[in-house]
Parts: sequence; C-alpha cells; structure tokens
Amino acid sequence: MLSPDSLRSRYQQVRAVSERICAPLETEDYQIQSIVETSPPKWHLAHVTWFFETFLLKPHLKNYQVFHPKFGLLFNSYYETLGTFHPRPKRGLLARPTVNEVYAYRQAVDEAMTRLFEALEKTPNPQVARFIELGLHHEQQHQELLLMDIKHNFSVNPLKPCYLSDLPHHHVTHTQPLQWHEQAAGLYELGHSDQTQFAYDNESPRHPHYLGAYRLANRLVTNAEYLAFMEDDGYLRADLWLADAWHHLKQHPWRHPLYWEQDDQGHWYEMTLGGLRDLNPHEPVCHVSYYEADAYARWVGKRLPTEAEVEVVVADKPLQGNFFDQGTLHPMPSTQAGQWYGDLWAWTATAYYPYPGFTPFEGSAGEYNGKFMSNQMVLRGGCCATSHNHMRATYRNFFYPQDRWQFSGIRLAENIQ
Amino acid sequence: MLSPDSLRSRYQQVRAVSERICAPLETEDYQIQSIVETSPPKWHLAHVTWFFETFLLKPHLKNYQVFHPKFGLLFNSYYETLGTFHPRPKRGLLARPTVNEVYAYRQAVDEAMTRLFEALEKTPNPQVARFIELGLHHEQQHQELLLMDIKHNFSVNPLKPCYLSDLPHHHVTHTQPLQWHEQAAGLYELGHSDQTQFAYDNESPRHPHYLGAYRLANRLVTNAEYLAFMEDDGYLRADLWLADAWHHLKQHPWRHPLYWEQDDQGHWYEMTLGGLRDLNPHEPVCHVSYYEADAYARWVGKRLPTEAEVEVVVADKPLQGNFFDQGTLHPMPSTQAGQWYGDLWAWTATAYYPYPGFTPFEGSAGEYNGKFMSNQMVLRGGCCATSHNHMRATYRNFFYPQDRWQFSGIRLAENIQ
Amino acid sequence: MLSPDSLRSRYQQVRAVSERICAPLETEDYQIQSIVETSPPKWHLAHVTWFFETFLLKPHLKNYQVFHPKFGLLFNSYYETLGTFHPRPKRGLLARPTVNEVYAYRQAVDEAMTRLFEALEKTPNPQVARFIELGLHHEQQHQELLLMDIKHNFSVNPLKPCYLSDLPHHHVTHTQPLQWHEQAAGLYELGHSDQTQFAYDNESPRHPHYLGAYRLANRLVTNAEYLAFMEDDGYLRADLWLADAWHHLKQHPWRHPLYWEQDDQGHWYEMTLGGLRDLNPHEPVCHVSYYEADAYARWVGKRLPTEAEVEVVVADKPLQGNFFDQGTLHPMPSTQAGQWYGDLWAWTATAYYPYPGFTPFEGSAGEYNGKFMSNQMVLRGGCCATSHNHMRATYRNFFYPQDRWQFSGIRLAENIQ
Amino acid sequence: MLSPDSLRSRYQQVRAVSERICAPLETEDYQIQSIVETSPPKWHLAHVTWFFETFLLKPHLKNYQVFHPKFGLLFNSYYETLGTFHPRPKRGLLARPTVNEVYAYRQAVDEAMTRLFEALEKTPNPQVARFIELGLHHEQQHQELLLMDIKHNFSVNPLKPCYLSDLPHHHVTHTQPLQWHEQAAGLYELGHSDQTQFAYDNESPRHPHYLGAYRLANRLVTNAEYLAFMEDDGYLRADLWLADAWHHLKQHPWRHPLYWEQDDQGHWYEMTLGGLRDLNPHEPVCHVSYYEADAYARWVGKRLPTEAEVEVVVADKPLQGNFFDQGTLHPMPSTQAGQWYGDLWAWTATAYYPYPGFTPFEGSAGEYNGKFMSNQMVLRGGCCATSHNHMRATYRNFFYPQDRWQFSGIRLAENIQ
Repeated sequence: MLSPDSLRSRYQQVRAVSERICAPLETEDYQIQSIVETSPPKWHLAHVTWFFETFLLKPHLKNYQVFHPKFGLLFNSYYETLGTFHPRPKRGLLARPTVNEVYAYRQAVDEAMTRLFEALEKTPNPQVARFIELGLHHEQQHQELLLMDIKHNFSVNPLKPCYLSDLPHHHVTHTQPLQWHEQAAGLYELGHSDQTQFAYDNESPRHPHYLGAYRLANRLVTNAEYLAFMEDDGYLRADLWLADAWHHLKQHPWRHPLYWEQDDQGHWYEMTLGGLRDLNPHEPVCHVSYYEADAYARWVGKRLPTEAEVEVVVADKPLQGNFFDQGTLHPMPSTQAGQWYGDLWAWTATAYYPYPGFTPFEGSAGEYNGKFMSNQMVLRGGCCATSHNHMRATYRNFFYPQDRWQFSGIRLAENIQ
Repeated sequence: MLSPDSLRSRYQQVRAVSERICAPLETEDYQIQSIVETSPPKWHLAHVTWFFETFLLKPHLKNYQVFHPKFGLLFNSYYETLGTFHPRPKRGLLARPTVNEVYAYRQAVDEAMTRLFEALEKTPNPQVARFIELGLHHEQQHQELLLMDIKHNFSVNPLKPCYLSDLPHHHVTHTQPLQWHEQAAGLYELGHSDQTQFAYDNESPRHPHYLGAYRLANRLVTNAEYLAFMEDDGYLRADLWLADAWHHLKQHPWRHPLYWEQDDQGHWYEMTLGGLRDLNPHEPVCHVSYYEADAYARWVGKRLPTEAEVEVVVADKPLQGNFFDQGTLHPMPSTQAGQWYGDLWAWTATAYYPYPGFTPFEGSAGEYNGKFMSNQMVLRGGCCATSHNHMRATYRNFFYPQDRWQFSGIRLAENIQ
Repeated sequence: MLSPDSLRSRYQQVRAVSERICAPLETEDYQIQSIVETSPPKWHLAHVTWFFETFLLKPHLKNYQVFHPKFGLLFNSYYETLGTFHPRPKRGLLARPTVNEVYAYRQAVDEAMTRLFEALEKTPNPQVARFIELGLHHEQQHQELLLMDIKHNFSVNPLKPCYLSDLPHHHVTHTQPLQWHEQAAGLYELGHSDQTQFAYDNESPRHPHYLGAYRLANRLVTNAEYLAFMEDDGYLRADLWLADAWHHLKQHPWRHPLYWEQDDQGHWYEMTLGGLRDLNPHEPVCHVSYYEADAYARWVGKRLPTEAEVEVVVADKPLQGNFFDQGTLHPMPSTQAGQWYGDLWAWTATAYYPYPGFTPFEGSAGEYNGKFMSNQMVLRGGCCATSHNHMRATYRNFFYPQDRWQFSGIRLAENIQ
Repeated sequence: MLSPDSLRSRYQQVRAVSERICAPLETEDYQIQSIVETSPPKWHLAHVTWFFETFLLKPHLKNYQVFHPKFGLLFNSYYETLGTFHPRPKRGLLARPTVNEVYAYRQAVDEAMTRLFEALEKTPNPQVARFIELGLHHEQQHQELLLMDIKHNFSVNPLKPCYLSDLPHHHVTHTQPLQWHEQAAGLYELGHSDQTQFAYDNESPRHPHYLGAYRLANRLVTNAEYLAFMEDDGYLRADLWLADAWHHLKQHPWRHPLYWEQDDQGHWYEMTLGGLRDLNPHEPVCHVSYYEADAYARWVGKRLPTEAEVEVVVADKPLQGNFFDQGTLHPMPSTQAGQWYGDLWAWTATAYYPYPGFTPFEGSAGEYNGKFMSNQMVLRGGCCATSHNHMRATYRNFFYPQDRWQFSGIRLAENIQ
C-alpha cells in the first residue's frame, strides 16, 4: 500500500492527467456521446470526481458538504445501492453542468481531498487509503475510456476532426516475425498474489489452474496479416464465424476493422487520435471485436488463448511496452523483445466470470466489478491508452464480444499435441 | 413584394433575431438534440445560413466561393435534389463546426449577402428578391423551432436549467368566458389571394370551399378546462380516443400535457422558457398532441374545427395577438377581444394535403412543403414563438398527430344543426 | 331495409359464402397470420360469428347462453367498450379452438339466429333488423379480408402453394385506351342519401361539397403503364416520392408491386389466388400502396383523384364490374364500358376523416368506423374480392398509406384549367 | 458403438417416440411457434427427418432421390455449409407441407433408412453407423425440444388447453432435507472418456481440471425455498442481480418463474404438461433463467456450481432419475438417494466454451455444437423430458442466460474454506 505522502502525490499526478487528456478539446467536444457505449468527456471528468466525493469525502471528511445535491443523480454511473441515476444512453443530452462547472467541481473536490490527506497524515487510516487508491485506478480506467470515447466521437463527424494533430508518429516499417512461446503443461497459480500491491477484487483469490501444453504468439496479429483474411473473403464465409457473430454481421455488415477506410484506388487508411493515416501493415490490427478475433484465428488455423494461458506467460515478463505514458496513443509494430504488454488489449477465449472463491469489494464498491460477470469476454495486457502504473500481469479487462471501440487486438495460441 | 431596400433591412432584422434568441445559451446548450424531432440550436443557425448560401449566393452572387465544402452535407436538412445529407437523428453528434465557427459562417454569408443586395439595387431581379423573402420566412420558422427545441432540450435535464430567468410574467388571473362565433353555411374562398404579399406555395391557389353552418370558439381551451378532463379519467377511457391514439398511449403512457409536473401535494407546475411556474388555470392548455386535442373535444361534446372553418373566421379579424414580438414566450389568458391569433397553434381536424391545383415552388424549393403532405395535421393561428410579420390568415402549419413539443393548443367548434 | 324474410335468406347466403371461401383450405392454412395486419382464416370465421352473438343473440334472443365464456376475449377484434381482447399480433398463436370447433361455433350461432329470425317474424324489430344487416355487411367485409389474407399467407411460403388451381382465367390481351371523363366545376352533394338502403355511418350525412373542374380516368392504370415507371427508375428517384414514402422505401426497399417476381431472363410473373401467372400487361396494376400510387401519378404528370371527385362521377354509373361474384378473384383488363367499379379499390388523395356532421353508430357499434379516422387514406370502387351486393357508390374503404396487401390500384385525375 | 442390428432397433424406437410425443396434438397444434426460440412441432418432425436424409441417405444410399427439392430450404435448421435456409422466426408461417405430408416424409425416409440398414449389414461402415447414432441423439434432443415447445405453445393460449390430461401425478408431499456432498480439492479429469460410447464433440477431449474443495447440494432448490426468495422481494432488489440481468428485468418485469400463476387469494398454480396444478412446495423450482438462478444463489448466500464441479460428483453416481421414460413430464420432489440426474437441468456458473483441444465433428456436422460456443451457459444433469439413453455424466447442455422455457432448475454449491 502507498504511503500517505506518495498517495497524495499520486493523486495529484492522476488527476492532472485527466485534464491533460482533455486539454485539446473544444467545449463542444466535451458534450458528445456518439454511441450508447461511450460517455461524453465532460461526464467522465465529473464521474471520477463524484467517485472521490462519494466514497471518500462524504463518509470520511468531517463536515464535508456535497458540491451539488443533484450530481449524485447525474454522475453515479451504475451503483444501484447508491440511489437512482441518470440513464446511461442520455448522458449526451446533459448540456448542464457546463464544462466550466465541471472543472469547478473537480477543483472543489481536489481541495477537499487535500484536507482529507492532511487528516490522513495525522491519523492514518488504511481503509481510507485503500479507497483512495481504488479511486485513482478508477480514474485511470476512465482516462483510457476518455481516449477511446474521444476517438469514437471524432470518428462520426464527417468533418473528420483530429484530436491531436501533432501526435508523435513512429514510421517503423517492419515487424518482428512471429515466434511461439512454448509453455509446458502443468498446474499453475493464477490471480493476484502480492497483497501489498493494489489489485481489483476480480483478480483474486490466487488459485491453482491446470493448463495443457501450448504455444503463445510473442506478438499481436498485424494489419498485413488481417488484410490477408479480408482478401480471402473472411467476412463473407459463414463457416469461420460463431453463430451469434454471423447473426451480428447480418445486422452490422462489417467488412473491416473499425476506423479503416478505403479510397477509390483501394488504398487503406486508418483513423487515429492523430488523424487519418495510411494503414501501416506492420502495426498490430486494432479495433476488432471478439467475433472478428475469433474468426481470424479460425481462418489462420490457430485459436485465441485463454486468459490463464496469457497470464502464466506474461507473469514473469517485465512490465514494459507501449503504454499511455509513451504518448503515441496508437499501437506500434512489435520489436525484438516481443509484445507482451501494451499496444493493444488482446482478446482471450475466456468468458469473464469470477475466480473460485471470489469476494467482491465491501459495500457499494462491490458493484465495481462483480455484477458485470456475464456475457463479456476477458482481454489482457493493457494498451497504448493504459497508464503504465495502472497495469499488472493479473489485470482482467472485459468487453462484450461485439465491442470494438476499445484498443483491442488479436494474440494467437495453439495446443502442443 | 418588398423593395430591395426594405428587403435588406428586413434581412438584417431577421438575422439578428436568430442570434438574439441564442444569446442566453451556453456553448454546451447549442449542442443538444434531445429527441430526434429537434435539432441542436447550432444546427439551426447554420442551416438557415446554408439556405441563403445555397439558394441565393451560389446561383446569384458572382464569384461566390462556398464557405466550407462539407457544410452542404452537414446543413442541408432534407433537400434530396441537392445531394446527400447528414442523417437527421445524428445532428446532435456534430461537435464541429464549433459554435464560434458557425457564427463565423453566419458572418461570412451576411457579408456576401450585402454584396448581393448591392447587386440587386443596381439590377433588380424579382426572382432573387422572392427567394430572399423565402429565406427570411424560412429563418423565422426556424426561430420558432429554436425556441421549441431549446425548451425541450432544457426540459430533459434533471438540473432543470432555465432559458430566461427574467422572462416577463403577466400574472393575469382570469379568462374571458368562451363565446361562440357563428358562421353561416355557404361557399367560401380559401387560400392565399393577395399576390403582392408573400405566402408559401401550400397556401395556394385560392379556391372555393363549401362549409355548413358552424360555431367556432373565440378562445383556446384553458388549463382549468383541461384539468377537468384529466380528473374525469380522460387519459384512461378508450372510448374517448382514436384507435391510433390509444395505441400510442399504450407505448407512451401520457397522463398530462408535456412539461406539466405534479408535486406530492397534488399541486401542478409547468415548465416554461422562464423556468418552472405554478400552473395558471386561466392560460390556454399548451403542448398537447392532436390525439389529446381530439380526445378532449370528444369528451366535452364538441369537435375540432377544420382548417377552412378557422380561416374563414379569422380572415377578417385583425392580425394581432400574443406573438414572439411581445416577448412573453408563453401563452396568456384570453382577453376580451378573443384569441384569434397568437398564443398557440390550434390543431384542426384537417389532414395536411394540397389545395386543389397546388403547384410547388420551382426547383429544389419545391421540396419545401409539398413532400410533407402525408400523415400530418394542419394547425392554424400562430403562437407566442411566431414572429408577427411571419404570420398570415392563410398560414398552414403542420405536425404529426403525436407531436406535442410545439406550442400547440385546442380550439373547439360545433355544427349548427 | 330488408324484410325479415329476405334478411333471413340473405343471412344464409352470406354465411355460406364465408365457408365456401374457406373450402379449399387445409386445416393448417386456417392457422396462419403472415404479417401483423392479417388474421388467420379461422379467426375471421369465428370473429364474424362472435359479432352476431354479441350484437344480436346476447341482447335480443331470449335465454341465449354464450357458446364459450372466453370467445369474447379471443374473437373481439377491437371493441374496447366490450372488454379486453387478445392482442391482434398474436392471433396466429391460437391453435385452439380448432377449425372444427370454430365451425361448430358457427353452426350453433346460425341455429340461434334461426330462432331470432322466427322471433323477428312474430315481432318485427327494425333496430334488430338493422344490426343483422350490419352483421352481414361486416361478414362480407371479412370475406374480402379472408381472400386478401389467404393470398398473403400463401405468398410467404417458399413452396408457393396455390389457393385455387382451377381459378377461371380470362386471357384478354388488350385494354381499352384511357379516356378522360370531364366533370364541370360546381357544388355537388356527397355521401349516402337513400335512407331505405344500408350504408355505414361513415358515409353520412349527405352534404354539399364544391369541386373545381376536373378529368377522371375511365379505367385503372395498367401493368404495362406501371412497368414504364419502374423502367424509368421510378423507385429510385426521391423527387417522385413523398418524404414519408421515401423514408419507408429506405426501410422496405420495394422495387415493384407486391406479388411480382422476375426470373433470370427478366420476365415478370405475378402471384395470384390461382397461382403464379405471367404478368399480363393489360391488367390493372394491383397491390400497390398509396405511396406508390402517388409517386406513379407524379411521374406521369397527373394526380390521384379526391374521394369526392370519384363519387360524383361514379354515382350515376351502373353498379357493375368485376366483383367477387364473377369468380375471377383477380382484376381484369378494362372493357369498352370503362372501369368504374370493381377490379381494384382505387386510392384517392383524401385522408379518411369524418364527413361534416358525422354521427357514429350507437353503442359499441360506434367503434366500427369512427375511431379509425386518422392516418389512413380513402379508397373507392370495390374490387374483385368485394361482393356486388356489399357495394355502393358512397362506400369509403380505408387503409394506411403503406398498406398493399389489399386489392388496390391506381386511377388518375387532373384539373381542367 | 452400436451393432448394425441394435442400431436399427434403436432407430425404430427413437423414431416412434417422436410420433408418440405428438400423438395427443390436434393438427392445429403442430403449427404454432409461440416465440422465436421455439419451433412448431411439425417443423421438428420434419427437421429430424431431413437430418437423416441429408447426412445419411443422400451421401450413403445408392440411387436415393430426395423427397422434395425444397425441404432442404425449409427444414435445414442452421447449417450454413448446406445452403440457405428458411429464417427461424418464420417457421410458424409454413402452413405447407401439411402435417400429413410431414408424416409421409417421415415414412419415406424411414423406408429408405431400412434399405440403408440392409446395406450396412452387408457392408459395415463405422462412419455411417456413427452418423446414424448422431442422428438418433439429434432426434432425442428434438424430442425434449418438442415437449418444451409444446408446453410453451399451449401456455400462450387463453383457453389454457392441456397437452395430456391423464398425465401421471405423484402426490409426493415431502422433500429430503438438503445435504451437502463434500469434494476434496484436486486435479480431476473432465470430459468424455469411453470411446466406445457415443458423445457429442463438445464433451471432448478428456482433460485435467483443478478444483478447490467444495460442497455440492444433493438436490435441487424447491418451490418452497424459491418462494421465500420471492417473498423477500428477491425480484426487486438490484443488489442480488447481475447488471445484465437487472437490465433484462426492466424490459421483462418477471416476478416469478415461467408458468406460475397466482389467484386472487394469493394461491399459486403452475402450468404443466398435465394442465394447471397447485404449486407443490416440495417439487424443485422449474423454468427459471440463469439470471434468476444466480440471483437466488446470491440471496441464499451460496453460489451456482461450475460444470466441472457437477461432473466430478455425478460421474460416479448411477445414471438414474426422473427422465422422460418415467412419463411424469414434470420434476418430482427429491427422494432419499438424492437428485443427481433427471428432473431438471441445473444451471452452472460456467459459460459454454470449448474444452482445451476441442475438435468439431467433421464436415457440416461440425456446425452441430461448436459455433454456438458464445454467450450461453452450461446446464447439467438432464431432465424429466430427456430420454434416459440420451444422457451421460459428461453431457453439456446450453442456453442463453435469459432463457427459461426449458426444464431448468437450480443446484447450489459453496466453497470449503
């Protein structure tokens, strides 16, 4: 657990990042909810603030007065035990509070948190410290959501606005050849172990899990590889798709990953947070759904790994890769060291369900993860929009199989017979 | 037709009104499309500007360069003959152009229009003058839409923001008793006649129309009268409703007009452009659908008038009433002179179809009215959000029978046996 | 009004026709509701029987016991004042009562009606006689619905079953050239006049109606003429369509009338109640919606007539044409005498609303027509599935503008300048 | 694998059962598809026949001519690799082929199968034998579906028809107290092992799986126990439900299991295949969804078992219980021996995904199971509508978490700390 001092500096750093992410936005951009799955940037900024207000200031800061009596209604995301909340699909209709008022809300909560930190230094309270750390990880999750949602919001505008026109660009023109990491069969331990380090409830308890021998790709599938699938009519062959996926394709006739565009000459482009770019064949394919990842794996004669297979391999790899901190906000071609973390969340073949013996966080925080354990798939590894110090080997991300506005990619696996 | 000079001053006046209506808005408010029927205020401001650019500047101003190549795509509302356009339900997702950019667009078009007016003064062109007049009436229609849409946008926000907190309030505490204007049977002339005055294509040609003897209420139905219908279970009795209306009520369980709210003590309030107010029993009931108007009339043993019955009576009444210019932006109780114009558009029992011999405007302007002649009902009389100089006795407004976000009310009629 | 004696023989004749229409059906065919607008044949047979039971036997036959306590729930179509009823979209899910049970229901009601006729002969009761006549016209309406619905039910089956393989076929290979009936402007009387003859409430009262001078086509538009519209990309040109129609076309990409099919060689066929036939260019185009009729008229530079324009012309024509009694169950090419009645219901440009002074039937029968007076369009003239003695010059049929499973066609009109 | 002789007699037995299940039906009952998830009984009878025709007769019987060229289109359920097929939601609209024609189809295929059995006796062909066995298990699955679907079809009819009025009724008025089977932690083998016995592809390969120590209930949750959950407002407390479940409850406001009804006195009834019965508190609760099973388990402080936990316990229990063969067609109270098989399929907490190393059946039969491995949950144990010789310890049934028209119940588990 972090010391009060480092917790306070961590708090300042994390809170500042959220605002730095929003700095390039126009007031109007803060307002958009392009699909029901996304939220307006303004809403994210307020919601993470409400989280500190609700879980820390109200119960733990003496004499704290809530900033606005209706912000609970507006900025509670989904905590049923904390009262009714504004319906998610209508977040984009909230012109008020204005962006300025939301920043004032942030500032007021930050000031109150300063007082809470002071109180904590006098009277340490491990439970409060743990909740602050939870609040910080929560805000970091929303920083990634901010980037995903901003990308989508911008993509639906025919003017094709650009979030950051001076986003660094790598110009790497090759990829490491795919190599297979071999892992012997055996009984492995899975899940969060180091109790001195923060983790979500859904990563525990640590438990044995048997795995047969398998190979895991040391890098993600590239755009060039995915194009071969497309050119082989991958999107048109029912035999490659799950039944639910094929049904979904009939309603949403996808023919390529989200954000790809083709011009009249057949040249492919990709919309990025730095604007429209030539599709780089060496970069990992990005913004694919589970359904597409699964179909690609079937087409290429491999399969997606389970989350256990991924965790076992990456657990002893150094936690390094192309994270948010690197500033590219876009996946990069794999380098010699392999691509074990960062760049893109890799879909796994594992449905998101509790580990044996799972116990939710106490109180309303128990709604943080547990109640979403149905109909979703686990993704692993972090991405270029994830903060490095938010990441762990045991981290379980999860999305619906049809979702693809997140930074998601494909890692392959196969059995060793 | 207006002289070039008065046309120019009219242009300046009308254009200024649109911006004055938006002056109280925050940047965020410009962005909202609360239901698919409404448009963001920003979109209205740009669309009416696009109208002048498209119908006047491009064809008639020498060397005019369009302001932005994609604004046609974004701000064309529904003119199929002018190319593809952004889908209506997604207008609220356009963060860009920003509000500032839209005002810059307005300014650029206004400047170009100044050059067009100069050219017109040198070389009068009646066709161009007519189109300018059309553009001005078009913008005045959108001014009313702006007020309707702003009202709805604000209403969906749980913070209950107020558009104009200093909106004038009348405090009138009585209504004139309802009196019946009697009209003899006969063959009447209907439609626009004075060719020197502007009218839409749908008001012509003037044509004979036979009417049996009838009585027409000299004022609109009041809140008190409508409350009696509600208290008699008006919303729960199938026998009072059209079949389509009853079906609609099952999907949308309305129990009172739009914008009404009741507190725990049973006291009624009404959201207005000046904020939440006590329901004034003497004011005309506002924001009811055709279905509600029809059910009310059946309950009270009367009927809605046809549009012809209204036009015949009001045609020789002075064109005065509670219009936008009066600044209340809310209907008022009827005064001694009766309530023949203004306050609220009164639903008629007439479906919106062409007059015998109807000829649409020429060219793309032919899409202005004609293609909407199905499934809608005519409303007559103008309202507190309609500009006085936009109104005429022959004016035909039209909405779908389930619509009720417009300023619509109920006027009764009955046959003389 | 009919004498008790002729009423009884009319009753027997009408009831027998319903069963004759169903005679070619397999038990399974009685069960199908192919779209929400249609009803299973079994349901029609029971519903018309319920009508006699409810409006005649229960109130007027001494000691009558209802056949089954739940048949009111199942076979009430839409009479809200008679209690709750089974939802229309779920009529096809009622396996029970079986077809045999429905026929037993018919027989029991017929026997009870015999007793009522006997009572009537002893004690004439004009009100009861009027309701019997209403019940007979009601059953005749459902006979037409039976044929429409059977046609649709059969059409959705890939086996392409045939209702009547020995349906008479005319082999007429020419059409009379279109001629225009000219009608002078003037004040005409419209609506039902002869109070000794039956008519629905919606045809009254007779009232004056002014018409400008016009021409009315003496026959319906033919398949050949409609094909020219199709070949001129009629379905692809937005300028020909009403806005609501164009929106509907985007959801339902129609490219030809209902029941048309084209083979690989471009040859057109039409599904009829006698099976699939070569499209006969001389027959009137059938199974088009109002939207298609309106677009065709616009394309050809004419317009659809109003219902008044049709009634004024046909009122003094002999009531003859290709009706159900002729047994073709399909429209035929126009003969020299013109095509003023029968073959196909012609869409009019008139929305279905009450005549001035309209008074619904008394009691629950008031729900028969009045409550459907919104959002629908009037059709005139009867069709090849309408019984001759069910028809009158003043008859107002009505459907939604997108409906096209009824036997509907196009008659043109134009103004005389 | 079965000998040719026993295969033939098994064929005759299985085929006869399907027809025996349908014997109580009226022709009309064969036609109904009450919800999109069910199929008309007629369709089931034809589809299982098509399966033999397609996978056995066409490829393996010399000179076989297909019965009808369009039956492939009509009765292919979902095999994309075998060509297009009639859309599932429209199966209830197929009046033709008639019931008699479907029975003729069955007879023709049975006769051709006789010839195939004769050929097999001369020239044994293990692959063909395996496919026949697959076809028989396939038909047995559809026998269970027949019973489920018939139950649902009957339930939507307000006449409340009864499938089998003389269905045996047990009148057992007690249940064994719940006992917990304790299972030690360890590495277990999971999946199908005896290659001489038939199993579906999804039960293989056998593979190690680690389990922590746990307890498994020896019987299903009873109606009385479930009523306690209901009476504690179980359906109204968001904290008991998964987020997707709560969302589903808002759309479908369930307040009790499917087929339960309460009268005005608060007395509960349950619709069964033997008609409406008093709810027996000792019987296991039936027709609950995964969402309800999961919420109940959370409320009672336990959890659902994983499929591995169930398989490990039941694998060495005798395969006996209340199956189809017993003829009750309804679950019964648990007896002393416990309730390890039969009565009801028990929901597990395991999503339906492939076992490590899963290989689908070859050819089009590969579509049998594999492509459904997403978004569904595994159920274990068989039920009162499952044939005894169709069942195995390793059998994996699967449904969507919201489904509840199948015979599904709740078995509890808990960890041993």
